[in-house]
Amino acid sequence: MSYFLTTVPVEVAVSSARSIGVLMPAEEVPLATAHGRILAADIAADIDIPGFNRSSVDGYAVRSRDTIGASESLPALLHLAGMVAMGGGASDSLQPDSCIYVPTGGALPQGADALVMVEYTETIGDDVLIRRPVAQGENVVLRGEDFSAGSPALFSGTRLSAREAGALAAMGRGTVPVYRKPRVGVISTGNELVPVGDIPAGSQVRDINSWMCGAFLESQGCIPDFYGICRDDREALRSMLIAALHHCDAVLISGGSSKDDRDMTADLIRESGEVLHHGIALSPGKPTIIGRVARKPVIGLPGHPASAYVVLLVIVQPLLTVMTGERERRPATMRALLAENIPSARGRDEYVRVRLEGTTARPEFGKSGLINTLVRSDGLVLVPSGTEGFEEGEEVEVILW
Amino acid sequence: MSYFLTTVPVEVAVSSARSIGVLMPAEEVPLATAHGRILAADIAADIDIPGFNRSSVDGYAVRSRDTIGASESLPALLHLAGMVAMGGGASDSLQPDSCIYVPTGGALPQGADALVMVEYTETIGDDVLIRRPVAQGENVVLRGEDFSAGSPALFSGTRLSAREAGALAAMGRGTVPVYRKPRVGVISTGNELVPVGDIPAGSQVRDINSWMCGAFLESQGCIPDFYGICRDDREALRSMLIAALHHCDAVLISGGSSKDDRDMTADLIRESGEVLHHGIALSPGKPTIIGRVARKPVIGLPGHPASAYVVLLVIVQPLLTVMTGERERRPATMRALLAENIPSARGRDEYVRVRLEGTTARPEFGKSGLINTLVRSDGLVLVPSGTEGFEEGEEVEVILW
Repeated sequence: MSYFLTTVPVEVAVSSARSIGVLMPAEEVPLATAHGRILAADIAADIDIPGFNRSSVDGYAVRSRDTIGASESLPALLHLAGMVAMGGGASDSLQPDSCIYVPTGGALPQGADALVMVEYTETIGDDVLIRRPVAQGENVVLRGEDFSAGSPALFSGTRLSAREAGALAAMGRGTVPVYRKPRVGVISTGNELVPVGDIPAGSQVRDINSWMCGAFLESQGCIPDFYGICRDDREALRSMLIAALHHCDAVLISGGSSKDDRDMTADLIRESGEVLHHGIALSPGKPTIIGRVARKPVIGLPGHPASAYVVLLVIVQPLLTVMTGERERRPATMRALLAENIPSARGRDEYVRVRLEGTTARPEFGKSGLINTLVRSDGLVLVPSGTEGFEEGEEVEVILW
Repeated sequence: MSYFLTTVPVEVAVSSARSIGVLMPAEEVPLATAHGRILAADIAADIDIPGFNRSSVDGYAVRSRDTIGASESLPALLHLAGMVAMGGGASDSLQPDSCIYVPTGGALPQGADALVMVEYTETIGDDVLIRRPVAQGENVVLRGEDFSAGSPALFSGTRLSAREAGALAAMGRGTVPVYRKPRVGVISTGNELVPVGDIPAGSQVRDINSWMCGAFLESQGCIPDFYGICRDDREALRSMLIAALHHCDAVLISGGSSKDDRDMTADLIRESGEVLHHGIALSPGKPTIIGRVARKPVIGLPGHPASAYVVLLVIVQPLLTVMTGERERRPATMRALLAENIPSARGRDEYVRVRLEGTTARPEFGKSGLINTLVRSDGLVLVPSGTEGFEEGEEVEVILW
């Protein structure tokens, strides 16, 4: 029996994974439920925002020329001609040598071209002392300066945060076009697996990958669809895969811990579709399968959760990005000094888990088979294929969890 | 009329905000829905994980002493005595000078103390050539080495990611104790406000803060409860606040753009509760109110969305952290070189929005009143109170959106 797979470089695998992703159709959702969704169109304001010349301070609207030379010792004296009400219509036009009080967000009266912040003024009866000059346009947001009607200000592929929610409201979007969330089937295979609620007997272990994959899919803006545990049985897996393909936009199959089981998964995919790659020059994560059935991506993940997680990050995430429509995000990283040598990865990209101690990164070597390092470590260091590894004290980039 | 508030330093305001936060009670939720929730108890495995000495490779279980001196040129020859099935019970005990095939995750047979990776072997009929020696314990995960029964491995206050979901499944937690999500009422006040679906007339503007606050609350693991737009009318606001306090664990009131309206909000809070602070040495964000009614936090935010957003980040987030039970997270930051001077903030913490151009941060000064900078900028630079500001070319820390 041969346990060697023909591996492809990680870039090739990522490129293939992206190539089989199909972008979801758009749907229109209420703004209140759009948080975290991916914008499916460029968005422009329906009208100029603001729709009027708007004060950005609490202060007095003036003709700027009336404040020339105003100072602490020689303030300009302007007649207080009134007060602008928030949300009100146009006020009277401002006459020379007078001013009108405008709260933050209020409309600049006709004839005024700037505002003096209230902090630099003093009221004396019906007059106002102005202690500073203002330039034309000072403290004013011009009509259309924030969002100009018809000019796109938010772009397709943006993940909507609180800031975008605010901008969408400003632009009058009570509903928002977003990409539908991909539904992704999750299957765990292995005779050794028991459900999380069971006490494993003998050399049984609990199904971890279903839950890890499910939460990962949610974090990526997908809907996980759990098909449960499948024994290493060709017919059982075939039925489960058919059901998952029927309901889902993609399927993740983890496990098949032995070569035979992995071949079974690959054979099943090949039977009704194609296997693009079986084996990636990636550690951990070598026995990954990238396949497609009925134009839907089917990814075979390693059975070991710590390996499966690296494949989720390195291979599955780029695929999902194509499906969800999200513009690629840079992962959060930080520079740290290595506490120990990391030897060369010999012809494959190697991801080494590290713990951070301040700005020092300590590799978690011998423990790569442990699930607890997924929660006790702080991130990964990539040792790229073909490099010599890293030396103690060298600065490396840590991809933070 | 005086427009000056008595301001307190940001640290004092944050400390007050945290002091009025009440931690939510715990609830038990299915693991499948626990993603993003905050763990409400320390979690230990119910049993040793793994429950047996487990192979971390595809390979041959051996007595390590039988491999001493094995090499490419002089391999050890061991009799292949069988194969361990995944998930199966105990196999026969390993005899000297023999080996048993064990797939990754399989149980180490009695008598074996290490595994030789299949890559370093060759099968010849019923025998296996071993081309490398192994040390005792090599490629074996010992019983309980991953999670030891009863020893906490995940801790209260952890936000549950895919990695924690995997660890929880390993530890047998089909349901998980998490803190209930705080329900937070959202009220926007201002005579100038119209709903997002309306076309603003005159100097009206659309309600932005409701949606920005709502999405922010979701991002913080809270449930927003929208009460809509309230005119600057004491009785209307009182009714809305009473309703919100009845249903929610905290309330955010934004707006009241003029001094009078802000005082109205503060007066209403004082009427049936207490105002801890009205005015923070923070820019933007000075007219913030930190109050409490019926032991529930009531926060008054500035009306301008760009200011309100800074207050959400600087003041509201630490408060919500107390309520959700989440251990404090470091915000994502990056070091960048300033493209322009940022002058001193004169006695208050000032947050300046910046755009990143590679590793250069360009301050978005004159545009701080614009909502579009919330989506066009990349983060904030803090100019702490009492500092001299920053100079062009100086390295600063950018708090990334």
